[in-house]
Amino acid sequence: MYSINTTHTFSPTWMQSKDCSDPLMFHVTTPPTTYTSLLLKSTASPATNCLHPLHRKFTRLPHLAGTEQNLRYAEQIGKEWLEFGLDTVEMVPYDVLLSYPNKSQPNYISIVDQFGSEVFNTSLAEPVPEGYEDVSNIVPPYSAFSAKGQPEGDLVYVNYGRTEDFSQLEKDMGINVTGKIVIIRYGKIFRGNKVTNAMLAGAKGVILFSDPADYCAVGVQSYPHGWNLPGGGAQRGNIFNMNGAGDPLTPGYPAKEYTYRSNLENVVGLPNIPVHPIGYNDAIHLLKNMGGQIPPNNWKGTLDVSYRIGPGFTGDFKSQKVRMNIHTNNQVTRIHNVIGRIRGALEPDRYVILGGHRDAWVFGGIDPMSGAAVVHEIVRTFGLLLRKGWRPRRTIIFASWDAEEFGLQGSTEWAEDNAKMLQERAVGYVNADSAIEGMYTLRVDCTPSLHTLVYDLTKQIASPEEGEEGVSLYESWHKRDNWTNDRDAPRISKLGSGSDFEAYFIRLGIAAARARYTKNKETERYSSYPVYHSVYETFELVDKFYDPTFKRLRAVAQVRAGLIFQLAESQLLPLDVNQYADSLGKYAQSIVQLAQRHPQEMTKYEVSFDALFSAVGNFSVAARDFHERLQTLNREDPMPVRVMNDQLMYLERAFIDPMGLPGRPFYRHVIFAPSSHNKYAGESFPGIYDALFDIKNSADTAKAWEEVKHQISIAAFTVHAAGMTLTPPA
Amino acid sequence: MYSINTTHTFSPTWMQSKDCSDPLMFHVTTPPTTYTSLLLKSTASPATNCLHPLHRKFTRLPHLAGTEQNLRYAEQIGKEWLEFGLDTVEMVPYDVLLSYPNKSQPNYISIVDQFGSEVFNTSLAEPVPEGYEDVSNIVPPYSAFSAKGQPEGDLVYVNYGRTEDFSQLEKDMGINVTGKIVIIRYGKIFRGNKVTNAMLAGAKGVILFSDPADYCAVGVQSYPHGWNLPGGGAQRGNIFNMNGAGDPLTPGYPAKEYTYRSNLENVVGLPNIPVHPIGYNDAIHLLKNMGGQIPPNNWKGTLDVSYRIGPGFTGDFKSQKVRMNIHTNNQVTRIHNVIGRIRGALEPDRYVILGGHRDAWVFGGIDPMSGAAVVHEIVRTFGLLLRKGWRPRRTIIFASWDAEEFGLQGSTEWAEDNAKMLQERAVGYVNADSAIEGMYTLRVDCTPSLHTLVYDLTKQIASPEEGEEGVSLYESWHKRDNWTNDRDAPRISKLGSGSDFEAYFIRLGIAAARARYTKNKETERYSSYPVYHSVYETFELVDKFYDPTFKRLRAVAQVRAGLIFQLAESQLLPLDVNQYADSLGKYAQSIVQLAQRHPQEMTKYEVSFDALFSAVGNFSVAARDFHERLQTLNREDPMPVRVMNDQLMYLERAFIDPMGLPGRPFYRHVIFAPSSHNKYAGESFPGIYDALFDIKNSADTAKAWEEVKHQISIAAFTVHAAGMTLTPPA
Repeated sequence: MYSINTTHTFSPTWMQSKDCSDPLMFHVTTPPTTYTSLLLKSTASPATNCLHPLHRKFTRLPHLAGTEQNLRYAEQIGKEWLEFGLDTVEMVPYDVLLSYPNKSQPNYISIVDQFGSEVFNTSLAEPVPEGYEDVSNIVPPYSAFSAKGQPEGDLVYVNYGRTEDFSQLEKDMGINVTGKIVIIRYGKIFRGNKVTNAMLAGAKGVILFSDPADYCAVGVQSYPHGWNLPGGGAQRGNIFNMNGAGDPLTPGYPAKEYTYRSNLENVVGLPNIPVHPIGYNDAIHLLKNMGGQIPPNNWKGTLDVSYRIGPGFTGDFKSQKVRMNIHTNNQVTRIHNVIGRIRGALEPDRYVILGGHRDAWVFGGIDPMSGAAVVHEIVRTFGLLLRKGWRPRRTIIFASWDAEEFGLQGSTEWAEDNAKMLQERAVGYVNADSAIEGMYTLRVDCTPSLHTLVYDLTKQIASPEEGEEGVSLYESWHKRDNWTNDRDAPRISKLGSGSDFEAYFIRLGIAAARARYTKNKETERYSSYPVYHSVYETFELVDKFYDPTFKRLRAVAQVRAGLIFQLAESQLLPLDVNQYADSLGKYAQSIVQLAQRHPQEMTKYEVSFDALFSAVGNFSVAARDFHERLQTLNREDPMPVRVMNDQLMYLERAFIDPMGLPGRPFYRHVIFAPSSHNKYAGESFPGIYDALFDIKNSADTAKAWEEVKHQISIAAFTVHAAGMTLTPPA
Repeated sequence: MYSINTTHTFSPTWMQSKDCSDPLMFHVTTPPTTYTSLLLKSTASPATNCLHPLHRKFTRLPHLAGTEQNLRYAEQIGKEWLEFGLDTVEMVPYDVLLSYPNKSQPNYISIVDQFGSEVFNTSLAEPVPEGYEDVSNIVPPYSAFSAKGQPEGDLVYVNYGRTEDFSQLEKDMGINVTGKIVIIRYGKIFRGNKVTNAMLAGAKGVILFSDPADYCAVGVQSYPHGWNLPGGGAQRGNIFNMNGAGDPLTPGYPAKEYTYRSNLENVVGLPNIPVHPIGYNDAIHLLKNMGGQIPPNNWKGTLDVSYRIGPGFTGDFKSQKVRMNIHTNNQVTRIHNVIGRIRGALEPDRYVILGGHRDAWVFGGIDPMSGAAVVHEIVRTFGLLLRKGWRPRRTIIFASWDAEEFGLQGSTEWAEDNAKMLQERAVGYVNADSAIEGMYTLRVDCTPSLHTLVYDLTKQIASPEEGEEGVSLYESWHKRDNWTNDRDAPRISKLGSGSDFEAYFIRLGIAAARARYTKNKETERYSSYPVYHSVYETFELVDKFYDPTFKRLRAVAQVRAGLIFQLAESQLLPLDVNQYADSLGKYAQSIVQLAQRHPQEMTKYEVSFDALFSAVGNFSVAARDFHERLQTLNREDPMPVRVMNDQLMYLERAFIDPMGLPGRPFYRHVIFAPSSHNKYAGESFPGIYDALFDIKNSADTAKAWEEVKHQISIAAFTVHAAGMTLTPPA
């Protein structure tokens, strides 16, 4: 009989070693009450910025999830966190389904002639950057969870592979992709949604490519001379829409040794066609001889080809076909989260979580190590505070997640493992994926009740930009990304998905936030950052181009640390439920406008949003009254403080519906979910939104509008009931 | 735009009026610390026992759910609760699907001859008892949620209609009931399971009858001369297996005005064949001329007929058929819960709930008014305590539920309405259905963590039995129902279902208990009590036969009140997690024994319970350590007390799995569920149990054993994770 508790706890025997001296704050010599401002107002000189060596240290070697090197980094991180002064550090393993190329049979795509001979093959690897010549552990570009296979056929080009692209292809252009191989450019939406769309349309293979239009900024050179994607680079990534399930074989439960695993055949949504990513040097060869219609301009990238739709090649090349050679294997693999804790002094059973992933497709220069370095530095800083005698009111949990790149697996399995505790105890979750994806300004996505804290914090943090001495991060951000159509404040967006906050926010209902430095979305039309998920994500990429002074990373670190600090330390939780009321009102307006595009059906099927608006009204009154009562709360008496804090903490939980969204049982937040059509984007009132999506083309209109009414009713109930949790408890 | 908050709050304007003077305790003249013993040790003379007039007051008139009279009782109860001194009383309406006979087309069953003429008809009503001659509001016996229809065909007798009875009928006797009308005797299992079994077997109608073997005790006269069921009496009841959904049209959400309602056609499990109940006077006529095989003795009741199986009649009667005439309507109907509160002094956000239903099939002499009178008296008693200056530490909620008889609808809708608050705040739920179902001894069903409190309490309560002066209820109970095969203590059983605790315990995971006086299960083999759900459930039935001194009701009231009082008042919650550990160990032993009946399959399919036993072991260690830490807890400091109380409160919640049991999404407790084969019975590890049930006859053996392994894994995870909630929180 073996023990089912497979968690390994580090014993605190390592010696302390410091290799840099400047934490996120100045050296603490003042009493505990001023820790906050010390933490946030630092303008320490970049030369001594510890993020720089930290980032370098953890980007030397490829550390893909499930590999030896990623375990070594986990052990090193765990050891150092303990040295920094955390109370406990554990290594928590899970055995999850990952996907790797077959080392003896490389993946590639060929053009074959009429005799079946390969007349062109795509490259087997990216040219490696200088200084990283040991290529043995660099996984070549591939699409994780691709089916195996060697489909052969004619190509069809489907732009970004969005719902609307496939719709346009079929309806306007009259092209059916059944039995064809589709070639789709990366960008705009999550690649997994592209693959799902292609499968639904009947394609037998998918080729994903990075077009310079989407992965090269104008006037910027390719890496290593600039930060654009070179022609030989390609974007890795998983293509599985797990919809929040984490490990595909153990949905709903942690993937422990003893856990029952579904047969692979029973896994819903696992791609059943081969998929492969290529760079634009290779894409030119596949695209240049394509025949068929010339597409509209918004289907055209910037390669020197005509972007014809196909199917197949033209003229002399008509008899050539495309063949995919994909031998990728799914494999149950051990992964490791590192979990560190600072025990709360007064409310040890209230948890504030800072989590970000450690696994990288290759070096992880941006994704995720620009974020993981920030977590490491925050742990170091909090460790210094602990040595000065500080201990937070609430417990802080730090997490280095594994296998995020394979579908948020480490974070989701830990959430499943600890759901019973988290749902009762978690106050907030701050995500720490890539700290930077551009050089323009701050970007924050968070739950509405954290808006006020984010604004307050950023007013206390210095702008990292040159020439903005004495300017706050808030002002710098506000100037660059003014939310003028809404209110006079910098833009804060809804949380979508595509990173590790998902299970915490969307499944468990824990107030969540993410913050990073971003591009100028008005002028920089390329998707994500150009070298995303390529071998060119290196330390040098950040050090030379994205953040040479490491001040941007530092500002992001201060935002993340500040959120954690205030959530853990404030006597009253810094959650603003009036902001939630305000956002709910806007989301309700927005969804009713979507429905009102169908005035006749609204009348015919008696669709009313009255109950939803009434619920939002009730919620708003309850929120306002709640904040009024907070003003008169006796803060000397611990019990009434705890009671109101519990109301604040559990408000986000009140939006969770255990029934889940239709067809997505692990997306349980009634107000927010990743878009069904693009996992990266957040949708508000997703149940109603999905019911309305493309409703004019639904097969049974009456039934479709019944579903809209059903979803409105669920939303109205949930908002009303959440509001009631804010009223006096008895 | 209407408001979706349709709750009506009583304004406290009524004058106080007392019509009896002796509460559950002596008159309180002592300081608050002794309230407990005052409450429990009362041996007040029966002549002044207030339960007597209370019970009489609320059993004068029929008060079926959805009728005017049941609303009047609700209003009266609400008014009096406020007068008794509760802080608030609300009337909370829902609009749910109920089912009533058609007043202009009565339901009955005929024997028809070859020309289609009705040669025998069953009675349209029960003979009413003396003193209750105004029959206009007495609903005749019917099966609520029966389909309409007039099926005609041959009868087949299927004993109790259990899974094993249908199996025996088909396999041993070779009889297929497809297209037949089955006649089934009441008893052993919930009638809804009988109907489900009949539908699955293909029957086109179901006749339920009360056999004297099951509804008449030997040596006892029929009502009004004794407490046996008269030949003209019949058992009403709903026949719908709602599996915890509450209102069938709004599963998962409260049935408010604005709530979206499914089409009736989409309701899962609504019976699609006519069903009707009859008494034994009528049953004789249907049974006496039946042909076919003579059944085994355990299929025979005690009517003077041969209990032949059929199909159809014999000899001269061969050409006769049976025709059912069922015109029952499903109808959305307004129901009303009454909800009263005493605000907690220190922890207003911790709720202790005492709930029982008010609606009755007719007068409700036993079911439910013997329980409702107890609730009323407890409210009155607590009101007196409030006047003496007492206020409980935690909030107490009193509920008078509506429409329990139609599938626990009032309680389930309120649980759905308030789920978000209850899951964060509810400490315990005590059920108050019928306080008496026999004259022998106490019966308690509760969650394991309440065992210790139940034993402690009953040692402080006086035995209500004649000749047992100075003997405690515990001793009296222990003498009559000794759990000798387990430990030296009176028997406590698992909670099944069939009453209003279901949503609170099985769906929400709130520690729950029920207590009532019961029969001697060793010697009294009749099912429930004989006149159950007939017109003969009157005040006189209790007053003359079941509890002439009302001391048994008083003892039950003291148990229920004591549970509520201790849960609301104890500084440390009186929950014993060691008892949970102990019970889990027994349940695990019991389920492994069930599996070990298949040793070859266990080996072949590598079925192991090691993980479950390991989890139980971990849980037991965590429980023991938790109670040890409780010993050293600083009780002067409110925060550590709250932290450990929260661990105690949330332990039951930790057994809830939002995924639900297979096919039963609202049964979410991994340790306990109503049996899939008899709703009244509680099953432990129900997921594993159901996977093992009848596994030797499964169509795909390998797949069936995979499901067993899956369910073992879920159980092991849940027990382990629940245990982890008891470890120090950081």
